[in-house]
Amino acid sequence: MKLLVVNPNTTASMTAKIGRAAEAVARAGTQIIATQPRSGPASIQGFHDVANSLHGLLEVAERHPDVDAVVVACFDDTGVDALRCMFDGPVIGIGEAAFHAASMVSCRFSVVTTLSRSLPGLRDNLERYGLSRRCASIRATDVPVLQLESDGAGAEALIAAEIGDAVERDGADAIVLGCAGMADLNDRLSRRFGLPVIDGVSCAVTMVEALVAAGLSTSKAGGYTNAARGRLAHEQETAPDAQGQARSAAT
Amino acid sequence: MKLLVVNPNTTASMTAKIGRAAEAVARAGTQIIATQPRSGPASIQGFHDVANSLHGLLEVAERHPDVDAVVVACFDDTGVDALRCMFDGPVIGIGEAAFHAASMVSCRFSVVTTLSRSLPGLRDNLERYGLSRRCASIRATDVPVLQLESDGAGAEALIAAEIGDAVERDGADAIVLGCAGMADLNDRLSRRFGLPVIDGVSCAVTMVEALVAAGLSTSKAGGYTNAARGRLAHEQETAPDAQGQARSAAT
Amino acid sequence: MKLLVVNPNTTASMTAKIGRAAEAVARAGTQIIATQPRSGPASIQGFHDVANSLHGLLEVAERHPDVDAVVVACFDDTGVDALRCMFDGPVIGIGEAAFHAASMVSCRFSVVTTLSRSLPGLRDNLERYGLSRRCASIRATDVPVLQLESDGAGAEALIAAEIGDAVERDGADAIVLGCAGMADLNDRLSRRFGLPVIDGVSCAVTMVEALVAAGLSTSKAGGYTNAARGRLAHEQETAPDAQGQARSAAT
Amino acid sequence: MKLLVVNPNTTASMTAKIGRAAEAVARAGTQIIATQPRSGPASIQGFHDVANSLHGLLEVAERHPDVDAVVVACFDDTGVDALRCMFDGPVIGIGEAAFHAASMVSCRFSVVTTLSRSLPGLRDNLERYGLSRRCASIRATDVPVLQLESDGAGAEALIAAEIGDAVERDGADAIVLGCAGMADLNDRLSRRFGLPVIDGVSCAVTMVEALVAAGLSTSKAGGYTNAARGRLAHEQETAPDAQGQARSAAT
Amino acid sequence: MKLLVVNPNTTASMTAKIGRAAEAVARAGTQIIATQPRSGPASIQGFHDVANSLHGLLEVAERHPDVDAVVVACFDDTGVDALRCMFDGPVIGIGEAAFHAASMVSCRFSVVTTLSRSLPGLRDNLERYGLSRRCASIRATDVPVLQLESDGAGAEALIAAEIGDAVERDGADAIVLGCAGMADLNDRLSRRFGLPVIDGVSCAVTMVEALVAAGLSTSKAGGYTNAARGRLAHEQETAPDAQGQARSAAT
Amino acid sequence: MKLLVVNPNTTASMTAKIGRAAEAVARAGTQIIATQPRSGPASIQGFHDVANSLHGLLEVAERHPDVDAVVVACFDDTGVDALRCMFDGPVIGIGEAAFHAASMVSCRFSVVTTLSRSLPGLRDNLERYGLSRRCASIRATDVPVLQLESDGAGAEALIAAEIGDAVERDGADAIVLGCAGMADLNDRLSRRFGLPVIDGVSCAVTMVEALVAAGLSTSKAGGYTNAARGRLAHEQETAPDAQGQARSAAT
Repeated sequence: MKLLVVNPNTTASMTAKIGRAAEAVARAGTQIIATQPRSGPASIQGFHDVANSLHGLLEVAERHPDVDAVVVACFDDTGVDALRCMFDGPVIGIGEAAFHAASMVSCRFSVVTTLSRSLPGLRDNLERYGLSRRCASIRATDVPVLQLESDGAGAEALIAAEIGDAVERDGADAIVLGCAGMADLNDRLSRRFGLPVIDGVSCAVTMVEALVAAGLSTSKAGGYTNAARGRLAHEQETAPDAQGQARSAAT
Repeated sequence: MKLLVVNPNTTASMTAKIGRAAEAVARAGTQIIATQPRSGPASIQGFHDVANSLHGLLEVAERHPDVDAVVVACFDDTGVDALRCMFDGPVIGIGEAAFHAASMVSCRFSVVTTLSRSLPGLRDNLERYGLSRRCASIRATDVPVLQLESDGAGAEALIAAEIGDAVERDGADAIVLGCAGMADLNDRLSRRFGLPVIDGVSCAVTMVEALVAAGLSTSKAGGYTNAARGRLAHEQETAPDAQGQARSAAT
Repeated sequence: MKLLVVNPNTTASMTAKIGRAAEAVARAGTQIIATQPRSGPASIQGFHDVANSLHGLLEVAERHPDVDAVVVACFDDTGVDALRCMFDGPVIGIGEAAFHAASMVSCRFSVVTTLSRSLPGLRDNLERYGLSRRCASIRATDVPVLQLESDGAGAEALIAAEIGDAVERDGADAIVLGCAGMADLNDRLSRRFGLPVIDGVSCAVTMVEALVAAGLSTSKAGGYTNAARGRLAHEQETAPDAQGQARSAAT
Repeated sequence: MKLLVVNPNTTASMTAKIGRAAEAVARAGTQIIATQPRSGPASIQGFHDVANSLHGLLEVAERHPDVDAVVVACFDDTGVDALRCMFDGPVIGIGEAAFHAASMVSCRFSVVTTLSRSLPGLRDNLERYGLSRRCASIRATDVPVLQLESDGAGAEALIAAEIGDAVERDGADAIVLGCAGMADLNDRLSRRFGLPVIDGVSCAVTMVEALVAAGLSTSKAGGYTNAARGRLAHEQETAPDAQGQARSAAT
Repeated sequence: MKLLVVNPNTTASMTAKIGRAAEAVARAGTQIIATQPRSGPASIQGFHDVANSLHGLLEVAERHPDVDAVVVACFDDTGVDALRCMFDGPVIGIGEAAFHAASMVSCRFSVVTTLSRSLPGLRDNLERYGLSRRCASIRATDVPVLQLESDGAGAEALIAAEIGDAVERDGADAIVLGCAGMADLNDRLSRRFGLPVIDGVSCAVTMVEALVAAGLSTSKAGGYTNAARGRLAHEQETAPDAQGQARSAAT
Repeated sequence: MKLLVVNPNTTASMTAKIGRAAEAVARAGTQIIATQPRSGPASIQGFHDVANSLHGLLEVAERHPDVDAVVVACFDDTGVDALRCMFDGPVIGIGEAAFHAASMVSCRFSVVTTLSRSLPGLRDNLERYGLSRRCASIRATDVPVLQLESDGAGAEALIAAEIGDAVERDGADAIVLGCAGMADLNDRLSRRFGLPVIDGVSCAVTMVEALVAAGLSTSKAGGYTNAARGRLAHEQETAPDAQGQARSAAT
């Protein structure tokens, strides 16, 4: 099967790391296409970056209409609902994959993520998925995403400190790492703390493979009905009168 | 005060209708700037349209950095969280405005919207706002948004039928009209059914005025910290290595 | 419009403070009638005071049948549901107004109120409104309401300490002041902490004006059907046999 | 033990019926004091009646300071929280007693009550108690409370119809009768439908006896701290300046 | 009435303690049959013990088909749903009895139990009953159940420390003791802390008596339809082909 | 990897069908051990059967200590929590696997199961997993489990009727088949209705493979700490005094 793994930000070193994490767990017969948008934010931290990345993400999706499944490799699950309208095969975000996996190997998990400004979006997602009940806490290290690329050791120490607190104070018995840029840390931290430390990329890749193996595809009978494909939306959907404005003052 | 009222789709007749609804209720001192993106979907129906409209919506926001408040005139509250990162003044979506208003004038409201494919997104929003507890039902007429422009009478009959069912079967004592394109129907339907039939545009305009009058602005201490302004994100935030891809096969 | 602003306790200095806060934000055309019951508790702190204040509150409402809207200036939203049965115009409590406003300018708010004994009632209200999801914490200063009148500076220091903890420990990005008697503190505290510190009186006044401007009135189609007006209930509704008791022993 | 059973409305025939239902299930050593307020609404249907009955209810409570436990015999659980501040012994409402009992003898119960206007208050109560999860539906017969006194047979037929629908359509396996005035119907309806049809009065009496037998009293460590006793609140708590008004216009 | 009080573990000293606690509060006419399984775990701590105790518990139930009511004296409410399928009379677990009682005498209760590994099961139960809303916290002393038998004083000190924290930090105004083995501590701890400290055994016994006195029995119209009785299930329900296995490899 | 797939009932034809469904989707390197208990109920329908099957299920687990992962092939997820205490590898129930899968390929799923008496247990599970938010409805065909074996065609017609209603009336866009005995129907029904019709066995097998491939095992840091292994609990854990009873009367 062809599996599109999209990093919705434009930092190639993260895309490479995500690609390696995906390759490491994928089945032999899975062809991983790890890629990223041509333009957009260099990292996705908070609501504005999420919105700002969608244009590039949709363009990537439009360039790969024939893949069998898609993983969105951003912990905010950016654009997953929109992509489900574009593909027949399953589409999974690494955030939801990690939450679902954690629900099946632990009683209560905590999330350790990067910046505090990302917490409200993650809380919203957990509520939407229904899995907030299984989440003991969401903790931010306040390490920016790109610092994971430049100062891995310093970042890891801060992440470990939050994991310790999540276990000790919040009663978590599993940890979800809340950023695709942490995809190389889970094994070491898992051994160190003696409990599952879960990376979303590997969960999303193996889970989307599982859905395909179980014969499942995205439902087209509800909110994910097919959007038209093969065109760049902003070029062709514009109504003839779109330049007009209801009121000219000060625009 | 200067109030930006953005219709996130590109249908100018809807922008005009929204502008009229806004003007009809705004305070004398409020300058309404009703506008729309230069490109993007002609209507916003479901997850793909929402994602697809954000690029244009952010561009509109970037062109109006000096307004005192913003109303997003799409019932899905498209991009409201992102815009809150861009403005100091309050930003409200017409969906949330209508839900909050309905919560204060009724015991349980129902939403009557256009296409079924929009229901999951509205359910998600109600859950995120916490107001699903006050919502008796969400009903779709399966009238497409743009048909409200072309066949108003036919659409109104279908909307009225759903309102009748919402009152009779679901126990609603107020109705929220789930589309900016219905902004001219609420008065007539309210008289007909003898209960509040609520249009989001008028609620959002008067509520955002209320927040400004009460001296409130958007918090910058949590998830809405300021995004950088004055630049088009996709032009300037691209990292130098962004064209690279982690794996070249078949992209 | 005529706006009745009722302080449901009998402390005139609080009524005066509430009246000033209301006047400060009301539209030019709004006539504020700030008043209070003739009898009842001097402050409303906890379940017994709430129940004990209702007789006086209903009497005030019966004396003002012709107002266009009502604000109940007690943070417990005492009697709001009952008053909605008595008026066609909108009726808002300052607690709910502040919660709704906070939901639109922040991701998660904390409430800082007076006595611990008021917390369970506030929790119940947040649950009823559906907005507990947006509330990070409710904190009590254990400053009695009337001490706000007599020792403003001491009270303010304790309130500020709780605000600091709400931001630091609970992750709040906005604060709701949980007492009508704090209506003169929000501006100063907002500047000090750099985030919205929200007073319910100003929110309720401007929001009820917004509802009126949007053409909304209280639904009479559900739980708020009109109670009979113009009579004092306890004088006229008593059934002929009301003095009797089913069993005489020891009453 | 002395058990105060208060009917918060002023209809003596209901008080008598409630007294009989209480006597029928009480332990031999329990002295039932079934009584009612001297003034207030003749029945309690909806938010306005609830608020309007509280003054009389508090007066009844103040006249019986030395009872060991209290049952509030109104299905809305009117004033239960306030009375818990006045008594050391346990205080139970017949609504909550029936909900808790139903939770222990069935999987999902439905409530069949009188007027539709009472539904929102019951929904709020179930949410506050946390028991809405166990409630399949709340149905109104639209039989006014006092018609239960005058036309028992007609009322019973309508109640039976709703019970049938609750079982058939809503999947209820127990029914809670939602009015103290139905306290003579549960046995017959239970036999007819072959499932528990639960009367709140008998549940509340036996449950409050159970709490006393288990040695439990109302906690005074949280929201139910003691209110001062032995005084009629509206006579003595009025502040000296209470007649003043912050603004004289038009009051 | 005949009341079966089953301790689902095999420690006779706990059964004796439970029997004494039951006798101490039961009505004069109640005949207590305190008993335990012939085999199974010596204490019930966590999911494995719960599952492992069910065989013995069902056997005990099958040996007592003619009792009027049943109390399951394990705080996990082990097997309560299954036993409700076997008896017409009411069946209550000591956990649920304590939660319901606490809900009626306090605003928010905390649970203090033995081992941390029991917390997830208790959380699940509170969620199932709907009462998690009323629970401020669940705290573990990490005192094993059987140590309550051997080192009462040491255990009591640790329990008292957790109670102090529950009141101080979590805002509890009542405490539920989360183990049948603590049934001799509640009175002393209640006096020491000045708030209700609730033992499940005494609540369950008096509450099940209350349900019987109110004329209630277990509904057979939903999930608790009668299981066949009078036979040991594993002896007679085995299908003829049950020894076979779909695949022989490595079993 | 060695994958234990346990059918917790004793009907060999169901074990065979489950084994075939598992083999059909498993990876080449997965060795499926499909088996069943030696004794216990012939089908699992409702709370009593669940409890009654646990003894046999634990015995099966004890006989296979060296498997890499476990699937419990009963839609009630019988004993999954207990088995997680016995194995280091992941353990999944077919109910939860199907719910998680449905959450990733649809907006809202409905469950179609066998007998009504199973509904309360499924509702409890959905609540525990947190996924009730994503569930539109649970419907029972009232076809007993074993009739699926004897009268497949008749059963399929009833299942199809419920699927039709779930889509039409409840707004489901995916269906979960609520019984291991339906594991041969999903493909045909999926094509017929044009939406995902999900079988739990194939989901559980591929998902547990996914968890193993992602390097995850069951957390031993919380509620799933290791239970002692290698002994039949009821033989060895019995305390010396276990035959005693606190009171001899009538046992």
